[in-house]
Amino acid sequence: MTIQDARTPASDQNDGQGERTPGWHKGYVQGSRPDLRVPVRQVHLTNGKDVTLYDTSGPYTDPAIDTDVRRGLPPLRENWIIARGDTEEYAGRPVRPEDDGIKHTSPRGGGLKNLDAVFPGRPRLPRRGRTGQAVTQLAYARRGEITPEMEYVAIRENVSPEVVREEIAAGRAVLPANVNHPEIEPMIIGKRFLVKVNANIGNSAVTSSIEEEVEKMTWATKWGADTVMDLSTGRNIHTTREWVLRNSPVPIGTVPLYQALEKVDGKAEELTWEIYKDTVIEQAEQGVDYMTVHAGVLLPYVPLTARRKTGIVSRGGSIMAAWCLAHHQENFLYTNFEELCEILAAYDVTYSLGDGLRPGSIADANDEAQFAELRTLGELNTIAKRHDVQTMIEGPGHVPMHKIKENIDLQQEICEEAPFYTLGPLTTDVAPAYDHITSGIGAAMIAWWGTAMLCYVTPKEHLGLPNKDDVKTGVITYKIAAHAADLAKGHPGAQEWDDALSDARFEFRWEDQFNLAMDPVTAREFHDETLPAEPAKTAHFCSMCGPKFCSMKISRSITEQFGGDDPQADEEEARAGMLAKSAEFAAQGNRLYLPLAD
Amino acid sequence: MTIQDARTPASDQNDGQGERTPGWHKGYVQGSRPDLRVPVRQVHLTNGKDVTLYDTSGPYTDPAIDTDVRRGLPPLRENWIIARGDTEEYAGRPVRPEDDGIKHTSPRGGGLKNLDAVFPGRPRLPRRGRTGQAVTQLAYARRGEITPEMEYVAIRENVSPEVVREEIAAGRAVLPANVNHPEIEPMIIGKRFLVKVNANIGNSAVTSSIEEEVEKMTWATKWGADTVMDLSTGRNIHTTREWVLRNSPVPIGTVPLYQALEKVDGKAEELTWEIYKDTVIEQAEQGVDYMTVHAGVLLPYVPLTARRKTGIVSRGGSIMAAWCLAHHQENFLYTNFEELCEILAAYDVTYSLGDGLRPGSIADANDEAQFAELRTLGELNTIAKRHDVQTMIEGPGHVPMHKIKENIDLQQEICEEAPFYTLGPLTTDVAPAYDHITSGIGAAMIAWWGTAMLCYVTPKEHLGLPNKDDVKTGVITYKIAAHAADLAKGHPGAQEWDDALSDARFEFRWEDQFNLAMDPVTAREFHDETLPAEPAKTAHFCSMCGPKFCSMKISRSITEQFGGDDPQADEEEARAGMLAKSAEFAAQGNRLYLPLAD
Repeated sequence: MTIQDARTPASDQNDGQGERTPGWHKGYVQGSRPDLRVPVRQVHLTNGKDVTLYDTSGPYTDPAIDTDVRRGLPPLRENWIIARGDTEEYAGRPVRPEDDGIKHTSPRGGGLKNLDAVFPGRPRLPRRGRTGQAVTQLAYARRGEITPEMEYVAIRENVSPEVVREEIAAGRAVLPANVNHPEIEPMIIGKRFLVKVNANIGNSAVTSSIEEEVEKMTWATKWGADTVMDLSTGRNIHTTREWVLRNSPVPIGTVPLYQALEKVDGKAEELTWEIYKDTVIEQAEQGVDYMTVHAGVLLPYVPLTARRKTGIVSRGGSIMAAWCLAHHQENFLYTNFEELCEILAAYDVTYSLGDGLRPGSIADANDEAQFAELRTLGELNTIAKRHDVQTMIEGPGHVPMHKIKENIDLQQEICEEAPFYTLGPLTTDVAPAYDHITSGIGAAMIAWWGTAMLCYVTPKEHLGLPNKDDVKTGVITYKIAAHAADLAKGHPGAQEWDDALSDARFEFRWEDQFNLAMDPVTAREFHDETLPAEPAKTAHFCSMCGPKFCSMKISRSITEQFGGDDPQADEEEARAGMLAKSAEFAAQGNRLYLPLAD
Repeated sequence: MTIQDARTPASDQNDGQGERTPGWHKGYVQGSRPDLRVPVRQVHLTNGKDVTLYDTSGPYTDPAIDTDVRRGLPPLRENWIIARGDTEEYAGRPVRPEDDGIKHTSPRGGGLKNLDAVFPGRPRLPRRGRTGQAVTQLAYARRGEITPEMEYVAIRENVSPEVVREEIAAGRAVLPANVNHPEIEPMIIGKRFLVKVNANIGNSAVTSSIEEEVEKMTWATKWGADTVMDLSTGRNIHTTREWVLRNSPVPIGTVPLYQALEKVDGKAEELTWEIYKDTVIEQAEQGVDYMTVHAGVLLPYVPLTARRKTGIVSRGGSIMAAWCLAHHQENFLYTNFEELCEILAAYDVTYSLGDGLRPGSIADANDEAQFAELRTLGELNTIAKRHDVQTMIEGPGHVPMHKIKENIDLQQEICEEAPFYTLGPLTTDVAPAYDHITSGIGAAMIAWWGTAMLCYVTPKEHLGLPNKDDVKTGVITYKIAAHAADLAKGHPGAQEWDDALSDARFEFRWEDQFNLAMDPVTAREFHDETLPAEPAKTAHFCSMCGPKFCSMKISRSITEQFGGDDPQADEEEARAGMLAKSAEFAAQGNRLYLPLAD
């Protein structure tokens, strides 16, 4: 494939964080149409070779594009969506103060604290499928259509567009792309493709601002997040989400239940299907690409968690459990699931069926409550597919290593190979402040065995809200787990990256080693602190004694040649050969490895 | 078991680092004799319960013991060793300037830069087995003797002394304890026991002092290192090792080849068996507990690495390969192995048979060179056992996840289940600065499958020398991998720790959660930065709707009871039951979980 370099030199690159990443060059692979250009990260090696890597950082790392968070990103997919002619713009639902968590009756007064917070970008009307039409990538794939989005991910994944279409049509992969989020660079989630990583962000009224959330999002995608979930609560949820969506090059996921709960002042028992449905439409019109829906938390399952060590730890799960108990009625997300499917199908919002009863401790792993819900998620997956809604399934949680495989195997069987999307799992409970590591271990294993996307865990898990450093640490840890899994799965091309870095390491090309690293900045910093102390690395293998010339082989071949009829003579010849080789080695300065010839 | 508290309160504890670790209390389990007291780390919970954890921190965390690095630790095992009556003190080999890397001819002049560097502690004579006697724990175990050391580890591991004896006698476990290192608190390495972690330290003339090395050692053991390898090079090797040994509560390992190489000014080809042997005796007399010996790097194997991506990356491996090529003779460690066994048997030094040809990149994993050497290590293991020398086998390295299991399975088969001691393995090459994580993933997996001890990897691997923070990060990461493996292996009692912490988490006992954490300091710091934002955690399950009272079950049982002859009536009764339960829940304040009654 031919790759076009972005216009200006890498040294001028800016990642939108006011920081430079030397050694990373933006490139594009041209697709079948002018407006289909797939971004890649290129590393130009000092030996003249190029390494091309998957790039999630969006236009922010393209020096040729002038980005402005107040304007938002260019609507890359807009023409593709319009050209399909199966959607229409419409007035949309009016945005109310309640959407931002502000009550008319609120003593805090109506309106936002700060009017500048309203996203100032180009005015837009929401879009949805014309009546009765499912406008989902699943529907297109089933009809045999290869959309520009499918071609885009095919180029990204280095497979044929037909493979992409087949995997989506079979429900083994999802391409989350709400018709109201034309800014995204399409990506695919499925076990046949590269393992993906999601990063969670989300303001809590107290601790972070809208600007910070947008920055966390661009920061996460810079380091490799494939999707971002906005789990904001408190005030300004709607407005924060608008800023994040308009500026995000990756699919955005949410948990609509969180906002719905805000609308009833946090009283789970006051939730209704109408309030929830209105919230889903509100978010779908904004462009949310996938939504976590806790429709599998059924009333009869709640008591199964009674004897657990850590009960229900999923926020959405405990909200729905509380609602079920408050009314002693079945989960309204379950009873209204078909209608919900119709809404999602009209915007191509992808389901992420939430595991509200996931285990929150090693002791609760793989228990009756967890697997009962999984079986229900299997039912719901079948219903969603009937409505042409793309669907993935969420997984745990806290699971010891020997119980991990059962999770993915059962999910794949029950959910007809729908993409599994797991949180870790954490392989022990005893290391708060290191849960990116306790979970990175489980994440790598479950991804090797078939999980399609990993939801990251940061060092702050269980302790507090992640800051920018925590987000980076979480993303890098999970990119490591994902890549380790790509290697173990033998994903075509995955090992080229490792090989390129190992070559650089062995040939002492430090700059190349840094630039090929998942985190060039920290690698360079660490190296500059002290000098490496491993002489063995300062060399590469001496060709003199390569396999062809090894004196041992010579002496053996001699013996064979002469049929070993005169072992004595062979022995002498061998010994002579040895002495000759010894002299040769001395002549080379007794160096096991010789410096590279340039 | 009854546990004696150390005399003074925990708040007065000092870890020898001038730091306090609130919440960690030193305790002891009394053995069958007064001088056999096994240290434990106790956490007193706010609910009145106690959790007892394995403790590697030595006397430094006992407020009742006044430690002084210039005096060294009390010789805990001295009487046990003397009582066996099979060893004798002797003059020992004179310590020469060369031992500290100083040449008579050296323009830098003889003697140490700084005479204070000489260890000032009590004078001692080296000790060794009386002529012809193997004084190893393996010899005792085979004779059916249960030594105090065996009883000590039995208490630590919570198994019977007979199990310890059997595992050692069978060669499935080692108890590294040089008769010249009476200061250690005995520990055992074997797949039947808790997975152990080794931390590497080692000065490089430029970057660290003797004091720093001693501090790194106590720091590593404070956080859980079970053994420490001193990989010092450059000047003052002998003296640094003396300080480390006299102050170490854990077994110390070395690679004698490094010091031998210093004695020939780094010229591999000038190494001789005599110089190496003299160095082994020098270190054995000081008290080194286990030694890495690269006797499996055979001349014919060297060319097998010619076509590798990263050739030979083991320092010891490349030194011996260079020697073999320089002389075109077989590895002198291999040809003199029987004599080496006799030396190690006289001091009870444990073999760590080095994998000099381990893969240094994903591309080289599980190749011909690596497995050829492993087969030779199998041979050597058999020879060592014939001499009653305890033996473990070193393993890789860089290995993708799908090739890890083959390593442990093959090693266990070829080496008759001798303990496997692996470096990681690293599951990808692309994340320098995060290799504690790339390798922590592989370490957890291979330990689950049977590796007995893990050699840690720090974030500085491939980039430079680890500082104190790197040592801590490496140790904690590997303790996580080891504990995750203990859980997956179902090690008796391993999950109690997780359960205690999860209980504390669910019941919102923050102090207990911090004190039970692998790193209480960082957990507390992170928590104090922001407040946790997960309401689901602020509660525990409401007993009202426990399994017994679930209205769904009630309605079902009704239906069954009446044989479902009048479904209509059952339905009504069920609906009534639901309404009643709903009212009950409301009466409880609609709370899914109720606050704990104290």
